[in-house]
Amino acid sequence: MPVSDLAALRAALAEAPGPDAAARAAAAARDATLTKPPGALGRLEALALWWCGWRGVARGRLERPQIVVFAGDHGVAARGVSAFPSAVTAQMVANFEAGGAAINQLAAALGARLDVVALDVGRPTADFTEGPAMTHAEFLASLSAGWDAVDPDADLLIPGEMGIGNTTAAAAVAAALFGGEPAAWVGRGTGVDDRGLAAKAETVAAGLTRHGAALGDPLEALRRLGGRELAAMAGAVAAARARRVPVILDGFIATAAVAPLAQAAPGALDHCLAGHRSAEAGHGRLLSALGLDPVLDLGLRLGEGSGAAAAALILKAALACHDGMATFAEAGVSGG
Amino acid sequence: MPVSDLAALRAALAEAPGPDAAARAAAAARDATLTKPPGALGRLEALALWWCGWRGVARGRLERPQIVVFAGDHGVAARGVSAFPSAVTAQMVANFEAGGAAINQLAAALGARLDVVALDVGRPTADFTEGPAMTHAEFLASLSAGWDAVDPDADLLIPGEMGIGNTTAAAAVAAALFGGEPAAWVGRGTGVDDRGLAAKAETVAAGLTRHGAALGDPLEALRRLGGRELAAMAGAVAAARARRVPVILDGFIATAAVAPLAQAAPGALDHCLAGHRSAEAGHGRLLSALGLDPVLDLGLRLGEGSGAAAAALILKAALACHDGMATFAEAGVSGG
Repeated sequence: MPVSDLAALRAALAEAPGPDAAARAAAAARDATLTKPPGALGRLEALALWWCGWRGVARGRLERPQIVVFAGDHGVAARGVSAFPSAVTAQMVANFEAGGAAINQLAAALGARLDVVALDVGRPTADFTEGPAMTHAEFLASLSAGWDAVDPDADLLIPGEMGIGNTTAAAAVAAALFGGEPAAWVGRGTGVDDRGLAAKAETVAAGLTRHGAALGDPLEALRRLGGRELAAMAGAVAAARARRVPVILDGFIATAAVAPLAQAAPGALDHCLAGHRSAEAGHGRLLSALGLDPVLDLGLRLGEGSGAAAAALILKAALACHDGMATFAEAGVSGG
Repeated sequence: MPVSDLAALRAALAEAPGPDAAARAAAAARDATLTKPPGALGRLEALALWWCGWRGVARGRLERPQIVVFAGDHGVAARGVSAFPSAVTAQMVANFEAGGAAINQLAAALGARLDVVALDVGRPTADFTEGPAMTHAEFLASLSAGWDAVDPDADLLIPGEMGIGNTTAAAAVAAALFGGEPAAWVGRGTGVDDRGLAAKAETVAAGLTRHGAALGDPLEALRRLGGRELAAMAGAVAAARARRVPVILDGFIATAAVAPLAQAAPGALDHCLAGHRSAEAGHGRLLSALGLDPVLDLGLRLGEGSGAAAAALILKAALACHDGMATFAEAGVSGG
């Protein structure tokens, strides 16, 4: 469905079903019978129960994971906030389509479908220090593109992104939502030097000043400071929430993109797991603000959905254990 | 080869080749050309370079990983140190052979060969509070069983274990090697209550007192306080070192089992990566003592090689990225 207006999006989130408590309880009951000491698989057990609850099953396997990489260009990229030129966004889209990027290899390792959605790449959003990054129409179109990109039959969604300049947009959104100094939210991104880092902080500060009180509405903050690929990730995660498709979040940009949903509709991110803690400076802070506990902490800072895809390998293994292990009774093993 | 005597084992470790520095440099050079910002894949890059160095290649895929689960019974199990009866060791060996355990599912997820080596299961070692756990002949036979279990064509080794009572043996070995109070090395294992935990600390203390100065020799400490599956893991890791097969270590027991090698021959564990930090209390302390930085921290405490197998999924994905990604030149992407 297209996201016709923000009231419809808020309503869809408000009406979205929660996890299936009975299915989760059945999954927990099965877990208790498996041939291992109770709790001995640690987080793997929690991952399996989380997924079973959202899928509404007592057991199952990850069979149709979907990764969608959304790409967009940013007006603020002209302000010296990235180590790479804007042309790289389009070049990387071609690389995704040719199978040459990290996310292609990770998707293959996971057995995931990989979709690439380029959102007017080559035509940057407006520089948010001068005005809203997107018009209302552009924002709704981007949300809709994200919503529509989700495979209704997916049993896991990983939203990823590519967009030169987008750590600056993400930092601006995070600062607008959670407060704090711009310098606390900006990081090295693809590898900027100290001058680039200072330019990022200045750009975020200028954006906050320019938009002022309008940023009090979280979705409006996303429209004014975010970007098309950020809005699309928010739309995709909202669609997944409405359809009870569990989501693994990637790094700083993906997390910042969906944070406005949590503020706009309590529980909007209940179906989301944090795949990893990125090396990007603001990510740990953002995860804490959202109450998310990452599965992995491997110093990744690539985006594309890469950290979430790595975490999904752990989820897949967790589900294989939960579904494939023998029970104490089946194996004739004495209980504790 | 059989480990005919400990001098031969020490000599094999002393003569073992290190990683191939030229291959590692070639792998690093390739990494620098791949379509990502330098360092953006974080630990995944380090994992790929580590493996390439030990395999002597500039790039490659994980194609023949081997998991070996060694099983043994322990005299100290009669001292109330486990939540499960000793009979469970043999029952779990049958479960491994039938494909019903967690490690079977994880091996399948990894595409790994899984071997199970039962070492006189049902005939416990001697109670180490009364005398050495193993005779010299038993110790050499266990080391040899481990050495011989390693597939010479494996491109990764994961030694796992099963043995009711073996967290107590591992704690005793760790305390003998690194000092500190027994209470700092014992943990809940499969889930003992406070009484069981106290029994573990008392058992370790009694073992340290009983064997005294003889524990100054690390391999002798392993013979006196360890167990057959611990000795076999040490033998397997030594064989892997001699053949330049990289190893991912599992949890507390696997790490304690191979720690004597590091003290007996400097560099003996240079080919080992810590797969995870276990929930077992002494594991973090042991990893720190050995200077190992775990890949995962997921609260596992199962053994069987399970945490190492989960980490190997990350290694496999890291190698897929390193081998499969396009270079900037191949993809026509502008460098930073």
